[in-house]
Amino acid sequence: MRRALAASMRVHGTTSPNPPVGCVILDPAGDVAGVGATAPPGGPHAEIVALAEAGGRAAGGTAVVTLEPCAHHGRTPPCTTALIAAGIRVVHAAVPDPNPRAAGGATALREAGVAVVFGPLADEVGRGPLRAWLHAVRTGRPHVTWKFAATLDGRSAAADGTSRWITGPEARAQVHALRATADAIVVGTGTVVADDPALTARRPDGTAYPHQPLRVVVGYRDLPCGAQLDTPDVLHVHSHDPDAVLTTLSERGVVDVLLEGGPRVAGAFVAAGRVDRVLAYLAPALLGAGPAALAEAGVGTIGDIRRLQVDAVHRVGSDVLIDARPSERGNQ
Amino acid sequence: MRRALAASMRVHGTTSPNPPVGCVILDPAGDVAGVGATAPPGGPHAEIVALAEAGGRAAGGTAVVTLEPCAHHGRTPPCTTALIAAGIRVVHAAVPDPNPRAAGGATALREAGVAVVFGPLADEVGRGPLRAWLHAVRTGRPHVTWKFAATLDGRSAAADGTSRWITGPEARAQVHALRATADAIVVGTGTVVADDPALTARRPDGTAYPHQPLRVVVGYRDLPCGAQLDTPDVLHVHSHDPDAVLTTLSERGVVDVLLEGGPRVAGAFVAAGRVDRVLAYLAPALLGAGPAALAEAGVGTIGDIRRLQVDAVHRVGSDVLIDARPSERGNQ
Repeated sequence: MRRALAASMRVHGTTSPNPPVGCVILDPAGDVAGVGATAPPGGPHAEIVALAEAGGRAAGGTAVVTLEPCAHHGRTPPCTTALIAAGIRVVHAAVPDPNPRAAGGATALREAGVAVVFGPLADEVGRGPLRAWLHAVRTGRPHVTWKFAATLDGRSAAADGTSRWITGPEARAQVHALRATADAIVVGTGTVVADDPALTARRPDGTAYPHQPLRVVVGYRDLPCGAQLDTPDVLHVHSHDPDAVLTTLSERGVVDVLLEGGPRVAGAFVAAGRVDRVLAYLAPALLGAGPAALAEAGVGTIGDIRRLQVDAVHRVGSDVLIDARPSERGNQ
Repeated sequence: MRRALAASMRVHGTTSPNPPVGCVILDPAGDVAGVGATAPPGGPHAEIVALAEAGGRAAGGTAVVTLEPCAHHGRTPPCTTALIAAGIRVVHAAVPDPNPRAAGGATALREAGVAVVFGPLADEVGRGPLRAWLHAVRTGRPHVTWKFAATLDGRSAAADGTSRWITGPEARAQVHALRATADAIVVGTGTVVADDPALTARRPDGTAYPHQPLRVVVGYRDLPCGAQLDTPDVLHVHSHDPDAVLTTLSERGVVDVLLEGGPRVAGAFVAAGRVDRVLAYLAPALLGAGPAALAEAGVGTIGDIRRLQVDAVHRVGSDVLIDARPSERGNQ
């Protein structure tokens, strides 16, 4: 399963609206006969890719796949049919498919005499490459990760607006790698005016990652002429309503959104309960003045504070990354 | 040495202006014959306490002590004389004594034929119970720890000023334990007006720790009548100048200061370069509005940002503690 997970991670960001799935086919002796991952939309699913590589060695073998194989006809025929036809005897799936249209994969396999086991690495897969897709299937909305960089005292820029750089090169490289797995990056017009970002996903050597996310600017203001984002391939959504923005993105097949700010746009998403993950890159530094990372989020008194729960804390270079999500306990 | 360190930690907060030292005496067979720690000012040093417990078993034995034994007559006779008289053959000391008045302990011992070894657990001792005292000896100023609690977006209170509670019970209990090892707690008059804190060191069950720090309020405003800090045992320093405050505290024998805020007082200390340690208790929560943990600290542009280096990151209950100090590289 770890190898299937690794295969899925390599295609993370290139498969939406399909899930990034990984599959390993073992022959009857337990040796790896084929490895596959979801192709871009319209292309084959992970199981089909892995079965093709395994060929005749799949007969009597085992399929290890990060998501329950689908049993429905979409743009491609059902994977269950292909697994059964190839003579697979056992399927290990990390997580069940919550998509009602695809459901019944395990049932179809079992009816054909294939044993189906759920669970190995379920948490790691569910919180990893499949997180955004599972969220989108369950809620009908894209998954939103709000990433921000700030000092320990919560400032994203100095009093004069300068902000390059608060965090170190390691944190910035990590953000670029994150962009390379996102379907879309969202910023407000204010960020375009203040920072003129390119919002591309680049490696530390300056070269572009193969997958570049859709760049999205939200807000009513026009973009300044000559801004790096003033190009036709940038989507400008003339709205401050997070749900309107997410609906527009969903219609374009976006599942995984990276929200990069600024403070007003982030505040609107937090206020609407539309932030599903918070990645806070905190630099060990103090400013004492300057704009905060988050503006008005609909909280007036301490009882309405937006509680999160910490999933992980990492040291990233000289900075600290806090990875959190809205608290399941809600506000306390 | 670990046992000597533990002994010193038990008296941390009760010895200033003397250092909290721990000492273990081993008999010639290597068995523990005596354990001691620094008594309150005017009382015996750790070595003397441990030697008294060891009695005749010290002869031919070893002394393990967290700080180089003193060779000078202060309020008590030199420890080196007592160690030599007791027949100690070997002294292990974690850190050398940087105090010129006490210096020469190792020299005096070696001249009497006692072997002296420096170094075991030096880092742990130097960053632990002896940190503030070593700092004070080296700089002539008390050591200042600025502790604050804030949300991930750097707010210490909601828009309406309410702030109870941002962090969880584990973090609050840790702050009370920290107070119980400090010589003094400093807040501004603004904090007294806004929060009316007691600034006592209490256990989670509400009982007081045996050691209570000196409570200090800085600023020009009068304290509100009936405020919990409006009592004669609270020191009110009518100044906003950190060095004036620290000089006043130093004259009272204060070595270890816990600065608890609010944002203006903290800003003044940060601007003056008088914060030696930052303890940031960050709650996984968002407010989007409300006062920041730190106000004006003399930084106008990103090039003047106050860089810190992270010593440790801890999960404390549901919160995250970032333990940092001013960067030795300075501003970048």
